[in-house]
This record gives sequence, structure tokens and C-alpha cells, in this order.
Amino acid sequence: MQPSGIITLTTDFGQTDSYVGIMKGVILGVYRAACVVDITHAVMAQNTHQAAYMVQTFHRFFPSGTVHVVVVDPDVGSKRRAIVLQTPEATFVAPDNGVLTYVWRDALQRWGAAQLAAHELTERRFWLPEVSSTFHGRDIFSPVAAHLAAGTPITALGPPIVAPVEAALEQPTIGWRGALVGRIIHVDHFGNCITNVLPEHLEQSRMGERFTVEILEERLTHLSRTYADGEVGALIALFGSSGRLELAVRNGSAARMLGVGVGDTMRVWRV
Amino acid sequence: MQPSGIITLTTDFGQTDSYVGIMKGVILGVYRAACVVDITHAVMAQNTHQAAYMVQTFHRFFPSGTVHVVVVDPDVGSKRRAIVLQTPEATFVAPDNGVLTYVWRDALQRWGAAQLAAHELTERRFWLPEVSSTFHGRDIFSPVAAHLAAGTPITALGPPIVAPVEAALEQPTIGWRGALVGRIIHVDHFGNCITNVLPEHLEQSRMGERFTVEILEERLTHLSRTYADGEVGALIALFGSSGRLELAVRNGSAARMLGVGVGDTMRVWRV
Amino acid sequence: MQPSGIITLTTDFGQTDSYVGIMKGVILGVYRAACVVDITHAVMAQNTHQAAYMVQTFHRFFPSGTVHVVVVDPDVGSKRRAIVLQTPEATFVAPDNGVLTYVWRDALQRWGAAQLAAHELTERRFWLPEVSSTFHGRDIFSPVAAHLAAGTPITALGPPIVAPVEAALEQPTIGWRGALVGRIIHVDHFGNCITNVLPEHLEQSRMGERFTVEILEERLTHLSRTYADGEVGALIALFGSSGRLELAVRNGSAARMLGVGVGDTMRVWRV
Repeated sequence: MQPSGIITLTTDFGQTDSYVGIMKGVILGVYRAACVVDITHAVMAQNTHQAAYMVQTFHRFFPSGTVHVVVVDPDVGSKRRAIVLQTPEATFVAPDNGVLTYVWRDALQRWGAAQLAAHELTERRFWLPEVSSTFHGRDIFSPVAAHLAAGTPITALGPPIVAPVEAALEQPTIGWRGALVGRIIHVDHFGNCITNVLPEHLEQSRMGERFTVEILEERLTHLSRTYADGEVGALIALFGSSGRLELAVRNGSAARMLGVGVGDTMRVWRV
Repeated sequence: MQPSGIITLTTDFGQTDSYVGIMKGVILGVYRAACVVDITHAVMAQNTHQAAYMVQTFHRFFPSGTVHVVVVDPDVGSKRRAIVLQTPEATFVAPDNGVLTYVWRDALQRWGAAQLAAHELTERRFWLPEVSSTFHGRDIFSPVAAHLAAGTPITALGPPIVAPVEAALEQPTIGWRGALVGRIIHVDHFGNCITNVLPEHLEQSRMGERFTVEILEERLTHLSRTYADGEVGALIALFGSSGRLELAVRNGSAARMLGVGVGDTMRVWRV
Repeated sequence: MQPSGIITLTTDFGQTDSYVGIMKGVILGVYRAACVVDITHAVMAQNTHQAAYMVQTFHRFFPSGTVHVVVVDPDVGSKRRAIVLQTPEATFVAPDNGVLTYVWRDALQRWGAAQLAAHELTERRFWLPEVSSTFHGRDIFSPVAAHLAAGTPITALGPPIVAPVEAALEQPTIGWRGALVGRIIHVDHFGNCITNVLPEHLEQSRMGERFTVEILEERLTHLSRTYADGEVGALIALFGSSGRLELAVRNGSAARMLGVGVGDTMRVWRV
């Protein structure tokens, strides 16, 4: 895999400080030709679960050989490892705290362990000379990402590890009377509520074509195909661009209409 | 017109999701040398009118041959067309729902219809292989913009159309006792209230140099030249960098002081 | 010093308007190869003090020869000067209203006046042809920055000046019973409260290793080394990545827990 020279950034740093700008300065200092792309800096502070979901959504749309940096790092300065994970298509640099859980599982399923490589970041010559105990995004992850984008092989960065830490990210479960019980894992800018229910969960539960989606007092008896399917103001359920079951309101916010957020449950019943 | 290789993005996607990052990944996948510039992703959700104003404000400051992508698209997945509009200076890619209204009218006035070209996007080989019904920003507009920036002629993208849809964007009217009745069409980050009143509206109404600007109980008897003209805390009216009549408060927010927002009316009286 | 071709932007323009996008269009029109990096556009409106702090935090992480543009400009259109400041490492373009105060003082201390150069921007051929009285970020600072990034020497831009305006940025003082009295100058995205107390202030006050940090009713008897040092929910004090004394709460917001913000005072007592 040739490096594409592209580096993406996903953090919980917000945009009111100079933290993100500093990371870009460090990257350009190591590799002036890098093309840095912001994904989002609005992950909920220190929410590694939401970060794990976010990373899964975008990486496959980038050219092969892109380096994805994820810095949601509540335990910075403690003994948690810093790692790099490489698939045949992309490279991920992150603290080893679960933010790569979905990406790792997808990669195992798609390519198998033999085609993946994960290393701990220990070689200090690829870091800033001075390493703080509070900002590894600047001191470790940014310079390492820049070296990777410039062609440094991941084997140079530190010893191999068996696997990244997998966070306990919740799967839908089977509840009372065989209902599939899912959970909202992200609320997007439009108020669409994205759940952890995938099409295969419905297949495995043998829901077929006929089922009811239920949240609070609302019951939806069919899936919509587009956001424009519903009447303005009406709640709909669909498999959106996330590939996950979403609750949405045409020209409105499902999260606000229902008063729900990340962590709330919903159910799917066979009819 | 040579392409500049620059692509701008104006959307209502916000910055809390990976939607904008995904569009950039798709663009760089098609045309690695593209230079992508964010204009704003904070257009009010599905507000095509505000988007139409926004696009008018910035395109002329970009190098000739820039591709401007506008994705405010409440009817994505329905039968609304996707289009490209080309003037002798710039190319615009957008859903055909009125977001190019001001740009189109300005271009007609400046160059005449013979020098403009508009095409429907129908040629799927310039799109992502798989097209969702919810995210044409990713599947159609981004790859098409990248192909345009790389030199694809707009004639290759689909059949010509006569004109883009023009939204019913409100012009100032003449009201009671000959007052010019305008409306706030945008409130900027500083709370400056930008109206749909242009200098030519005052000329056409023969306001001359002497007139009163009125909003709610406030009356302003002269135009200021700069934001620093007024006393701190006092309301002023001026033709700002938008080229439109604005209401402003020095070191403060006119929108908050007056309690007004997009859609509220103001009047100009001859003295 | 060779130009790096990189230009950073720090403004109070927010991201809901096209102002920042317009600046980038102007820059790319002058120098197509420029690499433009956003630092933040969320400086509090017209808060030149916060801008001065912000600029100090990031510039040293950028490659030598980078041009830093700061547009927090409450007096745009009045007689305040527009200036450029050059150190052996970087170039700063800004209104002459104090936003370069910290950078100027640091540079004087590090290199001495003989190695610094400051000029007023007066040569209109490096500006946009038409200069508004409301948006010098677009009309003057952006094109000048682009010319600098492309190699124009600062001597071409206007006559030398003796020094930039220094704002009255508050230093810690010695208060009742010898306490060092500091002030919060920035609250970051995580609610960490950054003060104007530097390590040398503690040395000069001969605090040694034993002192108490006090804010409101809270007393902290030792400095933490990392954000992860404290118990979840407990207030800690540390010298963070800003190099200044900060108040923080592990996995929480010190600003919200204490109900404090920019301008509030804290004390350091010798034990």
C-alpha cells in the first residue's frame, strides 16, 4: 500500500482552542506535503464509544493509504498504550482505549488477522523531542502520522502487539417476547438518531419484511427509503447513509421531537 | 476557462458528524490534487433561501475556474434534479431547488444567457458506483465536482437544461406612504442583521441622501460608513461588506439588542 | 528565512458566515500554492486580549517561515494601523491593537529588538483593488499574507515602525499576605481554566515546592502532573500544555464546577 499523503483528524478538542491548529503545524513540520482533512472535533468530550462509531463511518471513502488519527484520550499521561493499526487499505493512529474497536472488528471480518498489523508506538525518534503528559495528540500522534504519510513503515514505530483494546460496545439484544432491543449511539446534526441495529440483526432475528419499530409511545410499521418519504413532521425509520437503522423526522429533529439521545433504547418487533 | 483545481463546500451538515469529511475523501479519491475550501456548514437546516444568499457572497473572491458545491437539499431522494451551472468565471454544482437563484440572476445580468451553460447531472459514470437516496453530497455532488476540477467539461455530465429553478426570494416592496419595506435575510456571527435592500433599491425609490431607516421602535436618520462609527451600544445602519443594508451595534449584537432574526421586516422612509 | 508557504488564520469571525471562506479565496487568488490552516475562528467577539493569548500558544509549532494572520479588529475602518511583525522564525500580520502583545514580548526576550522587524502596511498594490471600511481581513490582511507567503519581503509592504501597540495585558500581582494573585485568561473546550501564572512567577515569588492554589472556597495543596492524576470529579491544578497554571477536573469541566470564567481571579499562597 502506497501512502496517499492524506491525514484525517477526529478528536474531541472542539474548535475554540488552538489544539487542532497545533497538531496541523506539527504534521506540516514533519511532512510539508501532507494533506490534512478534519473529520470532526466535536466528539463528545472523552466519549471513546462515540469516537469508535465515528471512525467506522468515513474511512472507506478515503483513498487507499490514508492515515487516520483519532485523539479521544481521557487517560492521556497514564499507562494506556499508543498504537498504530494497519489494514490493506488504511492506517489508524490512536490511543489504545477502544476507539478502534469497530474498525478492528470490521477489518478482522473482511481481511482476517493475517493481513492486519498492529504496533505499539514506542520509538521516540518519531515523536516531538519533548513529550508532555497532557497532549499526546501534539507530541506523539501528529508526528507519527506525518512520518507514516511520508512513507515510514509501521514496523519502525515500535514492537507488534496482538490486538488493540476492544471496548465493550453494546450489540442489540433479544428482549421480552423476542423483540430486538437496540440503542441510540449517535445523534447527528439534523437530529437523526442512529442506532446500533444493522440489517443483519434483522435477518438474524428473522424479522423478514414485516416488523414494527418502537420507541417510547411511537410505533412505525414500515421502513422508509428516503428522508423525503415521510410527511413533514412525521417520525420515520430507515436505513440511512450510516448503514444503521435510524429514526428521523422529515424537515425536523427526531431527537428533539422524541426527547431522546445517545444511550436511549428502541425495539423492533416481528408482526 | 481553465479549472483552478479549487472546490468550495457550502452545506447545512454542521461539523459534529463525518458527513463533510466523507465528501472530502470522495473528492480526493477522484482528484488527489484538489484544494478543498470550507465556506460554511452552518446554513440553517434545509434553508435553501439562506444558502442562496450565502453563495452570492463569496464566489467572486475565488480564482477563476473554481468549482462551488452547495448541498442544502431537503428533497434528496425525490425527483428534484441535480445540476451544474457554469459562468465564464465559475462552476456551481447543486440540487436544483433554488440555492443558485441569486447567482443565476447575477450571471444573467452580467453576461447574458448566451454565455451561461446549465446541465442536469445524469451521467452515472461520474458518480460513486452506489448511489444512496439520502446523501447525494457524497454520491453525486462530490465526485462530479472533483471531475470538474480535474478538467471534465460540463457537457459530459448530462443534457443541457434551460435554466435552474428560481426560488421565490423576496425583493423589497413599496409599502404604506411610499416606504421601502425590506426583510432580514441573514444574521451573521456578530449579530449584524443583513437585509435584502441593495443600494439600487434606494436609488429606484429616489431616496436620495435623506432618509430614515426604521425597525421596531428604532429610527436611524443617517447611514454610517464603518462599524466603528457609532457609539458603543448604539444601533447603526450601513452598507457593509455584504453590499446590502445592514443593522449593526458597535461592539454588540443588533439581533440580540432588537430581538429580531431572519424574516423580520424593516422600513426605509424618505425624509 | 525562507517562506514555508503556510498561512494560519485566527479570527473572531465564527463559522456561520462566508467571511473565512472569502479570506481563503483571496489568498488563493494571490498565491495558488498557499497552504491555509485554520487555528480558530471562535475568539470571543472583539476580544483582543484572548486573541493575544491564543497567538502565543501555537506559532512555535509551525515550520519556520509561516505567516500567521490575526484578525480580531474592533476598530476596523478607524485610524488604527495595520502591521506586519517578523521574527527570525515567523511573520505575523494583524491590526495594530495589541493582539501581538505576547508574541512581541516573547520575541524581544528571545532575540532582542535588533533581530525583529515591524512595518506598517501602507503599500496598496499588495491589497485588493477596492478596500472596504469594514472587512480588512479580506481586503488587506489576506492578500498581504499571500504575498508574504509567496516571498515578498516585509520591507516592500510599508515603512518600518518602532514597535507594535502593547495592550495592557495583566500580569499576576502580589496581594494580601504575599499571595500571588492571578487571573483566568482563557477557558478551553474541556472547561480547563488557563491562568496568567507562569512557572517563573512562582520562582520569583519564591514559592518553592510548597504552596497552596486557592480559587473561591477551593484549596489545592499540590500540583498534579497530568489530567488523569486526580480522582474523577475532583479539582486539580497543573502546568498543562499551555505552559501556564491551569485548573482542571478529570473527566469534567473546572469552569462549570466552579462557575468561573475569563477574568476571574485565583491565588497562590506560600505554605
